Amino acid sequence: MSETIEIPERSGTAFKLAKGDVLVVIDPKGQQVSDLLAFNASDLGEVISSGRTFDYAERIYLTTGDRLFSNRSNVMLTIVDDSVGRHDFLLTPCSYDTFRLCYENEPPHRGCFGNLAAALEPYGVEPDHIPSAFNCFMNVPVDGETGKLQVLPPLSKAGDRIAFRAEIDLIVGLTACSAKDSNGGSFKPIHYRIERP
Amino acid sequence: MSETIEIPERSGTAFKLAKGDVLVVIDPKGQQVSDLLAFNASDLGEVISSGRTFDYAERIYLTTGDRLFSNRSNVMLTIVDDSVGRHDFLLTPCSYDTFRLCYENEPPHRGCFGNLAAALEPYGVEPDHIPSAFNCFMNVPVDGETGKLQVLPPLSKAGDRIAFRAEIDLIVGLTACSAKDSNGGSFKPIHYRIERP
Repeated sequence: MSETIEIPERSGTAFKLAKGDVLVVIDPKGQQVSDLLAFNASDLGEVISSGRTFDYAERIYLTTGDRLFSNRSNVMLTIVDDSVGRHDFLLTPCSYDTFRLCYENEPPHRGCFGNLAAALEPYGVEPDHIPSAFNCFMNVPVDGETGKLQVLPPLSKAGDRIAFRAEIDLIVGLTACSAKDSNGGSFKPIHYRIERP
Repeated sequence: MSETIEIPERSGTAFKLAKGDVLVVIDPKGQQVSDLLAFNASDLGEVISSGRTFDYAERIYLTTGDRLFSNRSNVMLTIVDDSVGRHDFLLTPCSYDTFRLCYENEPPHRGCFGNLAAALEPYGVEPDHIPSAFNCFMNVPVDGETGKLQVLPPLSKAGDRIAFRAEIDLIVGLTACSAKDSNGGSFKPIHYRIERP
């Protein structure tokens, strides 16, 4: 059986996924967000791309059956399970500057961006090459008329999950999100496990 | 007076903008799209970011007064004039793969991506570092309920324009879009001029 690993609140990690592995991301307490990045393990210039994915899916909300494309138009991950049905791929990971600009009354935190940059550094990923993440469980409704977006508490309940199958060998970054607006005002861990068929 | 320059249909160009310069992008015939990229002229690792911009604007549709942020959360361009009010920042430039996957009955074209990569190469920009572009005049309505997006003909009429002030020294890439869906089924040029106050 695969081991379930905890990402403590406001932190992040990185690991390898082999082609065919299934990554299950679990929200153990409910209403928490987990930012996911994926790079081609054999060529870090290839990375998930929200723009390519939206273009091919013709949709900004993604769920079971949808594929996450790279900047080179290759499929990197396929969503194979999803008990929530609402995630975000519009926004970049929260960062020191997000806190500086959007949370003026709190001491800035390095955020998911800083956590991802630190976790991915040993694999050779440069911070400037971190794109918009696939933000598991993040609830960002968009008003189709005005384009206005909101960051609302996730729809996930304790134990909800989303699972991705790796379509190539990947380096993955994954966080337990650091921003209050994303998670309904409380910081919580994220769990994940890797299932190797 | 500043000179008006034509970008021929299905092509692209690149040029420097100095801080304070105003770039005016004009749709001379109506219903044409122009993909815009901007890199920090003194450090190509810094580039416009749809994700940061959406986060700070709290909106996916941008117009006069809105600012385009970089991946490092700095303001690169401010929209100072806009006679259309509908542009896209969701989608990546059309590419060989876009044509291969979305226009199966036509010979693939290198698209705005290939045109931007070629035009920016002399400045040292690598193709893998081309992010989602700010797609002037591109009309991509999103259904707020389902997240479904459509690529519809632009709302721009002949002579319509959008203008950007450079907030730092920039390398800019700009195209006359190559994809039929973006421009109502016909390929047309784009005009631009640089106003130096």
